[in-house]
Amino acid sequence: MSGCMLEVSLPGRAYPIHIAEGLATGALAARVREDQASQRAVVVITDTHVAAGQAAFLEAAFAGVPVLALPAGETTKSFAHLQACCDFMAAHALDRRGRVYAVGGGVIGDLAGFAAATYLRGVGFYQVPTSLLAMVDSSVGGKTGINIEAGKNLVGAFHQPLAVYADVSTLRTLPATEFAAGMAEVIKHGLLADAELFTWLEQLEVLEAQSEALPEVIRRNCAIKAGVVLADEREEAAVGGRALLNLGHTFGHAIEAVAGYGAYLHGEAVAIGLVLATRLSVSMGLIEASVIDRVEGLLRRYALPTSLRTPLSIDSLLAAARRDKKTRRGRLRYVVLQALGRAQVCDSVEEAVVAELWRQAGAVD
Amino acid sequence: MSGCMLEVSLPGRAYPIHIAEGLATGALAARVREDQASQRAVVVITDTHVAAGQAAFLEAAFAGVPVLALPAGETTKSFAHLQACCDFMAAHALDRRGRVYAVGGGVIGDLAGFAAATYLRGVGFYQVPTSLLAMVDSSVGGKTGINIEAGKNLVGAFHQPLAVYADVSTLRTLPATEFAAGMAEVIKHGLLADAELFTWLEQLEVLEAQSEALPEVIRRNCAIKAGVVLADEREEAAVGGRALLNLGHTFGHAIEAVAGYGAYLHGEAVAIGLVLATRLSVSMGLIEASVIDRVEGLLRRYALPTSLRTPLSIDSLLAAARRDKKTRRGRLRYVVLQALGRAQVCDSVEEAVVAELWRQAGAVD
Repeated sequence: MSGCMLEVSLPGRAYPIHIAEGLATGALAARVREDQASQRAVVVITDTHVAAGQAAFLEAAFAGVPVLALPAGETTKSFAHLQACCDFMAAHALDRRGRVYAVGGGVIGDLAGFAAATYLRGVGFYQVPTSLLAMVDSSVGGKTGINIEAGKNLVGAFHQPLAVYADVSTLRTLPATEFAAGMAEVIKHGLLADAELFTWLEQLEVLEAQSEALPEVIRRNCAIKAGVVLADEREEAAVGGRALLNLGHTFGHAIEAVAGYGAYLHGEAVAIGLVLATRLSVSMGLIEASVIDRVEGLLRRYALPTSLRTPLSIDSLLAAARRDKKTRRGRLRYVVLQALGRAQVCDSVEEAVVAELWRQAGAVD
Repeated sequence: MSGCMLEVSLPGRAYPIHIAEGLATGALAARVREDQASQRAVVVITDTHVAAGQAAFLEAAFAGVPVLALPAGETTKSFAHLQACCDFMAAHALDRRGRVYAVGGGVIGDLAGFAAATYLRGVGFYQVPTSLLAMVDSSVGGKTGINIEAGKNLVGAFHQPLAVYADVSTLRTLPATEFAAGMAEVIKHGLLADAELFTWLEQLEVLEAQSEALPEVIRRNCAIKAGVVLADEREEAAVGGRALLNLGHTFGHAIEAVAGYGAYLHGEAVAIGLVLATRLSVSMGLIEASVIDRVEGLLRRYALPTSLRTPLSIDSLLAAARRDKKTRRGRLRYVVLQALGRAQVCDSVEEAVVAELWRQAGAVD
């Protein structure tokens, strides 16, 4: 299996993404040793699943580094655990030169990244994603944050990592459902920005952790994400920009909020969201109906859901979407497809249209 | 009494500081009406003291705006109250166009500013300082944050307000000790950057809320603070810069941490810190011993302490200073005076010297 590298060239804050096997004894280990040699205080923030499942990886890369292992799962993205991270950094005497290694999936990356963004008003951190979702999506782009009662990721900061170390060997112990959930974001990236990637995914054998093609698929996803982020780091673009990455997410977030966090993996909720966004695009006359079959077909190959598993209330789903932070001046914003591989933001979607889409996905009055 | 205005000309994010009487029916009220007219969701975050003591002010400026009144006092700068702020913003449907008005002293400005910095990864906010300390210091410069177990302001963000509205009429109900605590920062600004201001303060009658000269004194302080902030917004300057504003603060923070927050008002702890920083500068041969008398004399005119009221442990004070985030590579950094009106950072202060200064201030082994 090959390794590869990508540079995210944010002005003044360029950072590398390393994608390979064996980083725990290679580039990542070298980074940690260098920090230690230059008297930087460093800590690892991870979760108990990773600490147990990736014990050898952690030991190889982080011998002698204090490790905070938080409970695994979305509910860890809370103020209480943010406080625990900050207290841990203070207990280990991190000053402004200190460094945080976020080792885990998107939850840990978002939480530890937010802690690094705010502790002493900002210390440097490294993303060490150990899930496919984190490798292709959440570890790139600098969005960090936590959830509050009203919704996911409603509190956070933009804070770019100093580097990303994606060691694909960590994916081997990942449950198949987690790997598949990551594939939902891969498929999303193809849909919104790279028709060639989408077609390549259709042609490839079903990807798994050992697949020869995986590092290149990950690299290509990071490149798509980084390209969008570079053009619109703080999601301020009036047209397109970072908002396009939310393809399927307004639907997906609503599912997660109404079903209760944990009922669906994020990628599973996004998978259903991608089907709905595609259907919305078809209903607006933007793309051919055949795209729906292609999207559903690819999602199904990864055993991802294309409709709700159990009925949810349409009213609750619509209300959740209204609370989503992508709302602008009270109008519902959805990302739609102009073509396979090209997306745009639509500001004026009627709720009645969305209600009907929810119904088709298995929601009820 | 006259009013005045100052522009903080941060590139791309310039903002005005209004200093006057009657802003609640003037510029501030106009701002709120404009926000409401343009369909922005707005909230006020304040504390129960201000809500009770400034009820008429709040009613005049913010009729119809939801108000969150948190407990008064330093312990409100906590993760729990940060969460309460974010939940309140979500409950009142603030989207990215939403605005937060922080109405109160430094605690509310720091907390509500941090909430605004992180809610939806950043919404706009206004500082409406109602204490002298907040007017001359904490409302200017964009530092926001909360306290954790390990120390004050250890978690936060840089987030500049859209404008500052300092209505001096709100100072009339302030307890004399609170007004005096604000004067400690005024005296600090003179000491570190403006010998003329220091001399002017010596010549002036003792200032109070009604004093004719007060708006101009406040404006001059904001100008000093803004000048330093402009040159070094994120406290990254290798020499001088924003760190100079910490004159007296490494000592002051240690007093607050060891005596327990609330035992000294921040300005009172800073007053003692200014004496110690002056003594340190004298002991290093940087300035004449006579400056000590002038500093102590001015502080005493405002009934500010110049030594500890009750003995604290020298070891505890030194340990607290070591934990202070201004520590760089483990060495103690103190701001010292090169002359009246000119400060510098000294990186290599011996702990034994500091211990002796603490002893002179009334600390014990």
